[in-house]
Amino acid sequence: MSSTWGERIKLSIFGGSHTEAIGVNLDGLPAGEAVDWEAVLAQMARRAPGQDPTATRRKEADQPRVLCGLLDGVTTGAPLCAIIENTNQRSKDYENLRVLPRPGHADYTAYVKYGNRHDVRGGGHFSGRLTAPLVFAGALARQMLARRGILVASHVASIGEVRDAPFDPVNVSPQLMERLSGEYFPVIDPAKREEMRAVVEAARMDQDSVGGTVECMVTGLPVGAGNPMFGGAENLIASLAFGIPAMKGIEFGAGFAAAQLRGSQNNDPFYYDQEGKVRTRANRSGGILGGITNGMPLVFRTAFKPTPSISREQDTVDLTTGRNAKLVIHGRHDPCIVPRAAAAVEAAACVAVLELLAESGLL
Amino acid sequence: MSSTWGERIKLSIFGGSHTEAIGVNLDGLPAGEAVDWEAVLAQMARRAPGQDPTATRRKEADQPRVLCGLLDGVTTGAPLCAIIENTNQRSKDYENLRVLPRPGHADYTAYVKYGNRHDVRGGGHFSGRLTAPLVFAGALARQMLARRGILVASHVASIGEVRDAPFDPVNVSPQLMERLSGEYFPVIDPAKREEMRAVVEAARMDQDSVGGTVECMVTGLPVGAGNPMFGGAENLIASLAFGIPAMKGIEFGAGFAAAQLRGSQNNDPFYYDQEGKVRTRANRSGGILGGITNGMPLVFRTAFKPTPSISREQDTVDLTTGRNAKLVIHGRHDPCIVPRAAAAVEAAACVAVLELLAESGLL
Amino acid sequence: MSSTWGERIKLSIFGGSHTEAIGVNLDGLPAGEAVDWEAVLAQMARRAPGQDPTATRRKEADQPRVLCGLLDGVTTGAPLCAIIENTNQRSKDYENLRVLPRPGHADYTAYVKYGNRHDVRGGGHFSGRLTAPLVFAGALARQMLARRGILVASHVASIGEVRDAPFDPVNVSPQLMERLSGEYFPVIDPAKREEMRAVVEAARMDQDSVGGTVECMVTGLPVGAGNPMFGGAENLIASLAFGIPAMKGIEFGAGFAAAQLRGSQNNDPFYYDQEGKVRTRANRSGGILGGITNGMPLVFRTAFKPTPSISREQDTVDLTTGRNAKLVIHGRHDPCIVPRAAAAVEAAACVAVLELLAESGLL
Amino acid sequence: MSSTWGERIKLSIFGGSHTEAIGVNLDGLPAGEAVDWEAVLAQMARRAPGQDPTATRRKEADQPRVLCGLLDGVTTGAPLCAIIENTNQRSKDYENLRVLPRPGHADYTAYVKYGNRHDVRGGGHFSGRLTAPLVFAGALARQMLARRGILVASHVASIGEVRDAPFDPVNVSPQLMERLSGEYFPVIDPAKREEMRAVVEAARMDQDSVGGTVECMVTGLPVGAGNPMFGGAENLIASLAFGIPAMKGIEFGAGFAAAQLRGSQNNDPFYYDQEGKVRTRANRSGGILGGITNGMPLVFRTAFKPTPSISREQDTVDLTTGRNAKLVIHGRHDPCIVPRAAAAVEAAACVAVLELLAESGLL
Repeated sequence: MSSTWGERIKLSIFGGSHTEAIGVNLDGLPAGEAVDWEAVLAQMARRAPGQDPTATRRKEADQPRVLCGLLDGVTTGAPLCAIIENTNQRSKDYENLRVLPRPGHADYTAYVKYGNRHDVRGGGHFSGRLTAPLVFAGALARQMLARRGILVASHVASIGEVRDAPFDPVNVSPQLMERLSGEYFPVIDPAKREEMRAVVEAARMDQDSVGGTVECMVTGLPVGAGNPMFGGAENLIASLAFGIPAMKGIEFGAGFAAAQLRGSQNNDPFYYDQEGKVRTRANRSGGILGGITNGMPLVFRTAFKPTPSISREQDTVDLTTGRNAKLVIHGRHDPCIVPRAAAAVEAAACVAVLELLAESGLL
Repeated sequence: MSSTWGERIKLSIFGGSHTEAIGVNLDGLPAGEAVDWEAVLAQMARRAPGQDPTATRRKEADQPRVLCGLLDGVTTGAPLCAIIENTNQRSKDYENLRVLPRPGHADYTAYVKYGNRHDVRGGGHFSGRLTAPLVFAGALARQMLARRGILVASHVASIGEVRDAPFDPVNVSPQLMERLSGEYFPVIDPAKREEMRAVVEAARMDQDSVGGTVECMVTGLPVGAGNPMFGGAENLIASLAFGIPAMKGIEFGAGFAAAQLRGSQNNDPFYYDQEGKVRTRANRSGGILGGITNGMPLVFRTAFKPTPSISREQDTVDLTTGRNAKLVIHGRHDPCIVPRAAAAVEAAACVAVLELLAESGLL
Repeated sequence: MSSTWGERIKLSIFGGSHTEAIGVNLDGLPAGEAVDWEAVLAQMARRAPGQDPTATRRKEADQPRVLCGLLDGVTTGAPLCAIIENTNQRSKDYENLRVLPRPGHADYTAYVKYGNRHDVRGGGHFSGRLTAPLVFAGALARQMLARRGILVASHVASIGEVRDAPFDPVNVSPQLMERLSGEYFPVIDPAKREEMRAVVEAARMDQDSVGGTVECMVTGLPVGAGNPMFGGAENLIASLAFGIPAMKGIEFGAGFAAAQLRGSQNNDPFYYDQEGKVRTRANRSGGILGGITNGMPLVFRTAFKPTPSISREQDTVDLTTGRNAKLVIHGRHDPCIVPRAAAAVEAAACVAVLELLAESGLL
Repeated sequence: MSSTWGERIKLSIFGGSHTEAIGVNLDGLPAGEAVDWEAVLAQMARRAPGQDPTATRRKEADQPRVLCGLLDGVTTGAPLCAIIENTNQRSKDYENLRVLPRPGHADYTAYVKYGNRHDVRGGGHFSGRLTAPLVFAGALARQMLARRGILVASHVASIGEVRDAPFDPVNVSPQLMERLSGEYFPVIDPAKREEMRAVVEAARMDQDSVGGTVECMVTGLPVGAGNPMFGGAENLIASLAFGIPAMKGIEFGAGFAAAQLRGSQNNDPFYYDQEGKVRTRANRSGGILGGITNGMPLVFRTAFKPTPSISREQDTVDLTTGRNAKLVIHGRHDPCIVPRAAAAVEAAACVAVLELLAESGLL
């Protein structure tokens, strides 16, 4: 399977960069959930291009149209499908991609897999544009979670070698969560944003691009969401989040750093807090033990490679002649997609957590 | 869902540390595949405890018994189920785990999720022992892959702060792949093994444990295995591999390091090799573009936290009294499970790749 | 799950009788399949209301709009989503359904399951209108099957007590298959169509409705499509076809009649035909042995209850007062949906067979 | 997929007629459910051969051994796997099945699908023996349902042309449900049992076999179990029940008879009963409206073909010579499997209903 995810809340994403429309179908949402449309659009705007000096200038309205599943703005329990028309298509930019596959893109692998009929325009179904319906789905899920006291936020943890301050994994304020989840380019330390922008601008000046990481946190989770083995919180979040283009790594809690620790350093001691609730003093587990949430904030980090679309001349192959060739990619491209990816990572977290709750009878 | 994975080749793992038996059912294996039993046992032995100074001394025969699915040693196409009897159970060691959950373990989360009836003995279904049936399944898959020219190997890339030499991601020899996939404690640079053992022994002396990383490689893959979005090679491998206890992170190709690079550094240029085959000069993609294999070696690294079972006194809670408490874990435990985890990571890679091939019509 | 079906070719149907649009997403279609749009519309027309004296007069354009998945009229291999706008909505007809559930409809059960937010208009997601996207999906699948020599057709086998001539289960002509699969009210014996119409008209005169059966046949199937146990051809076809509203039974081959036979009567003897192909002399198995196609025509029959929307006064309950009540349903309703159901049954067969072939590596 | 079923409660059946063992794995059972072992064995005995003059005399202990998932006789919430050793194997009886496929059996289709490696002994994975693990799974599910006031029973509704009295679909007594679900050859009217036995004995005397039908009922269901479209109660029950070998048809409520009725006859009027509960006066819907239970008894009937294994000489093909041939099947075979099939049908109903409840949040 490819573009369908989930057992209880089945998410199906469809469309391509230059198809008539893109969209998402959600089968299994709870009934009776009111949707705050302004809040949905605000999340869509966080992912949309063209708002920031670091982003591409291709502007799109990205106004989702809900075809079904809502009645008077409230979920009916039937499948909810929403589409976004693609209005600003300049297909001619992509004519030569069938011939000269772009390094770092899916052009070559999709060509081998699907043959000549693969829709190569703008990356087709592999385009980062497909995160728009994911963010829409996440925006709905986010509201359902918030109604249950669960908040989801992220920040750009690094771009290139510039690092933001990390989340406090045991004690993050709802105010910070609120602020970050509303920002286009969320950072904990605002001073770092300008440093990061400078790194991006430098890459752009060099006709280049740059990667980064996103750290995501979920607070307010109940204990007991998740399943052993392949149904754990890590498994579900990873299997959904790797659907975001350019993502190449994910780690939970202390993650790769834990591999350098000793058990006595990495184990999070349990204690009863003043309200008699079981908590852990540290949170190197990232809020997950045995695949199941332990009531502490769920924390994970994801790595994004630099966007492969750069203006510099690159080496590639000519699939028609069977010879090596040079490629120059035209058109406008983000030198850094990490700020926008943050919205997509949060959306993936929102959908995955909603699914975890549904699977665990906690919704 | 929890302990079942896959669409085309459905893997179901069952059992607990102290149940009568553990095992695995594989539904969807191709028919007509001969099984080399010695090779299966050799893989089982790589995961088994008690072979190395770094490992626990609990010895188990781990002789899998195939109940069905083989006829004269060849797969019939019907479900293949194998079980391993649990013979060396000392349940009394675990009596107090219902009361005092171990930090870093699933005791507390499983208690909340399943209640008093959860099988807490030895971690129950959450035990690392459940990697035995995974390794068995991987051993079968490995033989089917090898028959198609695909090799899977891994090495202990680090323990604590000691690092092995990395794989050459574009040009690894079949000899190295063969050697590593047969070793109990696989390393590329044998000198590092002794350094790593010293780190483990030091942890043991301190009644502590230590984590590490495993780097895994798959060579000989065809182009075109995998699917877009949620069905990509990264998604499938991650969703399966996070079923290995203590795993907290995964990265593909350059992974988190890619987040610090520029596009011009990270993009892998295509070229035609001498046989007219499309290859990439570097392999920072880890052999995966758009979720689909590109014919280069598939490379990923996984992070393992230090095993949480340490002999030192730890802080925890007493679930019966509602007060904070001290815990001392008795029994023998690995100070480092990373060498044995390598066998499990390879097994996950073998099963995931077989599934990817099956889904892509390449089996 | 509810409105998503399939493993290899994932079908997701969305929308309700009075939502803005209804539609279908198909994830997993093979790439490179040309779509004959006229043939698609011809199938849509077979299901559409208003063409026959026996059908309701509510007219709808039912022009599907493909949002993605086709490029120059050929499948790209990416998800194909199509929507149909709902243009002719008269919601006021349905205001009282929340209060007085219609006997034989899902009003009451959906009310209990989804609560007040359930979209009751026109039956919402439970409406027979949702067979339109199913027929669309079936029309695409039908063309892919035809390209592989596989034909799908059905006929109205009975309405009330009037029975059409049955299919010859071993030797049906492609000409008959072609004729039936193009007709709005397909019957093998055209004389029976007038008798059936009279039965329907009599029911209409009585402010009543009438049920019937549809017999469906698939010819040209290869041997070996299907799986044992729960993945058999019967299982897949039944699990999809019971998604058609008002369907209450399904039987394969001799079906319920086989229950009255002896083995010597029911077993289909094998023989080699003149081309050296294995065939059976009779076809009481309906072309399926052990869940797997045997190369003979696949035959099944489905039972449709009389449409529950009748104009006569009926007994029901008033969910607001907690008292028994009388209900008179206004609006125009088909006195018999069986001729239109034939198109839906064929569509279900087309999709299910495509899935069976895909699962069996025969596509 | 083939031998795995379900989303919330995943059932995997494995083994073949002559493999070392057969069994079942259940992933997703609720924790804390006590198992009455005697009651489990009683259900196993109902399916076991050799108890009745109508049944084959091959005797098997059929003692299931639970490998995991129970602790002190109570479910732990982890996967529950049970196996049954195959002790009474006479493989030599089946040597010629690779050459001369039995009419009405899966020998030929499995040969084409799996090739020479298919396990042909006793039908392999296609054997009716595989209903033993299904009945085991059903016995567990039955106890979980009973604890929630839900009873499942069936009777042999017909053998050949002899018909038992039908269930009263609106008002069946718990006493009758209890009696039937404990009987080896359950009938409502005991006098009919002797008539049916005579029909079976006559078939045996003629070296023949005979088919029949099973009517199954589920009482005590809550309103609201099930989903629209492909997730309805009919879909789930059918997709599971068609896994029982020899089943060729299923109908719910009035089923095929409804196709001959008018709406005014078939609609079940709603009313409030004396306790203020919504009920229907008749139950032609079989307790299901729109795929969702309405609180009335759920009723369905299934058709079983006569067992194809008959002693009479039959026409078949010789797959080695490519010529038509004669086949005489040796060994002992049931002339009628319908009484034993009743236990399997009930088991399928138990598992499917447990899944429906789990999916609907009603467990």
